Amino acid sequence: MGRAPRVVVVSARAGIVVTGTEVLTGRVADRNGPWLAEQLRLLGVDVGHVVVVGDRPEDLRAALGFMAGTGVTLVITSGGLGPTADDLTAQVVGDVQGRPSVVDHALEQRITAIVERLMARRGWRADPAATAAGVRKQAQVPEGATVLEPVGTAPGLVVPPGEGRDGPTVLVLPGPPSELQGMWPAAVAAPAMRVALAGSEELRQETVRLWGTLEAQLALTLRRHEEDLGGLEITTCLRDGELEIVTRFPPSAQPAYERLGTVLADEYADTLFSTGPTLDELVARGFADRGWTVATGESCTGGLLAARLTERPGSSAWVLGGVTAYANSAKEQLLDVPAEVLAEHGAVSPEVAVALAEGARSRFGADVGVGITGVAGPDGGTADKPVGTVHLCVAGPDGSAARALRLPGTRSAVRERSVTMAMHLLRSSLLGGPGA
Amino acid sequence: MGRAPRVVVVSARAGIVVTGTEVLTGRVADRNGPWLAEQLRLLGVDVGHVVVVGDRPEDLRAALGFMAGTGVTLVITSGGLGPTADDLTAQVVGDVQGRPSVVDHALEQRITAIVERLMARRGWRADPAATAAGVRKQAQVPEGATVLEPVGTAPGLVVPPGEGRDGPTVLVLPGPPSELQGMWPAAVAAPAMRVALAGSEELRQETVRLWGTLEAQLALTLRRHEEDLGGLEITTCLRDGELEIVTRFPPSAQPAYERLGTVLADEYADTLFSTGPTLDELVARGFADRGWTVATGESCTGGLLAARLTERPGSSAWVLGGVTAYANSAKEQLLDVPAEVLAEHGAVSPEVAVALAEGARSRFGADVGVGITGVAGPDGGTADKPVGTVHLCVAGPDGSAARALRLPGTRSAVRERSVTMAMHLLRSSLLGGPGA
Repeated sequence: MGRAPRVVVVSARAGIVVTGTEVLTGRVADRNGPWLAEQLRLLGVDVGHVVVVGDRPEDLRAALGFMAGTGVTLVITSGGLGPTADDLTAQVVGDVQGRPSVVDHALEQRITAIVERLMARRGWRADPAATAAGVRKQAQVPEGATVLEPVGTAPGLVVPPGEGRDGPTVLVLPGPPSELQGMWPAAVAAPAMRVALAGSEELRQETVRLWGTLEAQLALTLRRHEEDLGGLEITTCLRDGELEIVTRFPPSAQPAYERLGTVLADEYADTLFSTGPTLDELVARGFADRGWTVATGESCTGGLLAARLTERPGSSAWVLGGVTAYANSAKEQLLDVPAEVLAEHGAVSPEVAVALAEGARSRFGADVGVGITGVAGPDGGTADKPVGTVHLCVAGPDGSAARALRLPGTRSAVRERSVTMAMHLLRSSLLGGPGA
Repeated sequence: MGRAPRVVVVSARAGIVVTGTEVLTGRVADRNGPWLAEQLRLLGVDVGHVVVVGDRPEDLRAALGFMAGTGVTLVITSGGLGPTADDLTAQVVGDVQGRPSVVDHALEQRITAIVERLMARRGWRADPAATAAGVRKQAQVPEGATVLEPVGTAPGLVVPPGEGRDGPTVLVLPGPPSELQGMWPAAVAAPAMRVALAGSEELRQETVRLWGTLEAQLALTLRRHEEDLGGLEITTCLRDGELEIVTRFPPSAQPAYERLGTVLADEYADTLFSTGPTLDELVARGFADRGWTVATGESCTGGLLAARLTERPGSSAWVLGGVTAYANSAKEQLLDVPAEVLAEHGAVSPEVAVALAEGARSRFGADVGVGITGVAGPDGGTADKPVGTVHLCVAGPDGSAARALRLPGTRSAVRERSVTMAMHLLRSSLLGGPGA
């Protein structure tokens, strides 16, 4: 990944502290850091660091100290607001801000009502003493903090620095992503937050996607046009063959962004496939525009392509379904792959990819069929067909397109990349543009 | 999540710095921080913080300074080693450690050979001047650093503090997970790393999994037995109904861990479903032990269950396949769901879940069939069958088991939780134990 000409945009800066041993050790993937960074970006607030810490108060204290030292005006924490005595975020933040915590009795009653309703609905039982202690702990509020009403059972907090102190305001949010996201509008609206966000100026963000261009080549282009691109912060990221170019800029740099768009359209006409929408959005749009339906016949990807196509709301309008045909007998019986073809060419072959696509198409009565067969590994590879050998076919009203791939990586990587390649093959079949 | 009795184990401590604007902004999920934290744990090295920074050198410098201030003996960075001039990690680390970078000409030649081979294999073309500049940049090495040979094109580096300086050793690794992971054995074996890791003592880690117990209830149990559990660091995490209890301890605390095991087995006999293996491992083991095969009939989950079952290497021994029957016509034609049942009860009904399971079972000739149908949302919900209504059925040689669910959350959450619930239903059908 690389970066090209940029100017520093004057704006508010914030830091994010994600707490939780389960996140630090990777048992749970952090979804809050990236989500918060994106929300802050939309508000024109620059994020320099996301720190992940475990459940040790001294580590949280160190992270808050670091953030304050970077000169941010706002720190957002996620997690550590649970009912157990070791969920310590609110108390540590109160201490760091010089605002000791006390029980908010009205809040305690509101949380009690929430917990009782929740347990009744789920039919759960718990020790009343344990529950009451948990609620009392969650109702501890640093003096002078703003309470954000619970979405789950934990309230959020806006904790400005104590009287006569400097440093950032700390916004304390719960760890479950649905609770954190549900609380965000109230957090942004809180008067104490508006003070911390003063000086932010909304940034624009645009994305261009290339398929099959090297980063180094693009870097050269950007350097050559450096003088025309002042005011743009351009980052590039290469992933599964897609070079994503994200540009952020203040409204005053819109003309420079127009110049960049012209340069890219001129020099990368053969690889530029999107000036915004993601690959998945383009595929969905392609089916909607044509009024076509699709069905899948998958072997090595085991249903991942069908799962990806149906991830989009409303996809039932154009996805009829698919067959995961892992066993050869399933390929024959559910997708009409001829036994002779399997015997002659083997299950991993261009011929079987075509038969899977055609079989899916006819069995589901779909306009378009997609076939995928390959060796995902780690076992099953041969000298002739090593792990990573994958054959794709898209069959539709206008004919068919096929690709043979040799993909590097683990079982999981081979499966995911196969699906991405199939999506590109679908996109180019539906919409034209750079082929897979 | 909560934490119970723990002692601080004396061991080496490390910090992790993940670089990349695409990671900071969430366009790419960080897989390196959690992976490195886990590897360090296995070496008995404690990790206090993972910091994610963008591509700004001043932010990276601040993160390295913070890590040094926490008293760690080792900092690991990932990313920022690409060929473009803005990939600055190696240079910034060299500056911070007081070791200016110079071109390593032998390394430059080795990288050139790698890049030429790579481009020839992929049939890519690039400007020779751009390529040479990229290679020279990647061959910049801080004086006195140990070079770790490239797995992709970027070398890794072990950079001890400069002469007469204090502070941690910095291990610089590339960002692509396959390259980082491929380089890890060489990194750990480097003499300069052994110095940084001195004092680490391997920790043991054990996991117990409960299905349907509240965290607050468990916290109460742990507090009651606090005196017997000295030396254990216990963290709990509730996810999709599974309460995962992870305990880390030095070998000397093994007897305390045995006591914890007895307490959990006694008090949570009705929810304890694993003393180690994950849900997916248990399901795989259940099929292997019984010699049974499985096929899926999925509607709202769109292939996700088949994809999850086939994610495991060797799963082709027991997964025959599945049908994603999104359209009603596909339910009828590929899985023999009677049109009358669809008309009478609707596609989202216990009756259709049973028919999907039976249809998958008979069409694939599998021992066990799984049926899933539901409303994943955001549209399609009714007063009677709101978004999140899901029906599951597992049909096998010993009869069938069914569940009706009302799941909260987004489309994606409903789909994923449905699959997890189906896995639990498979587990309890195969192995007994707490039901789904």
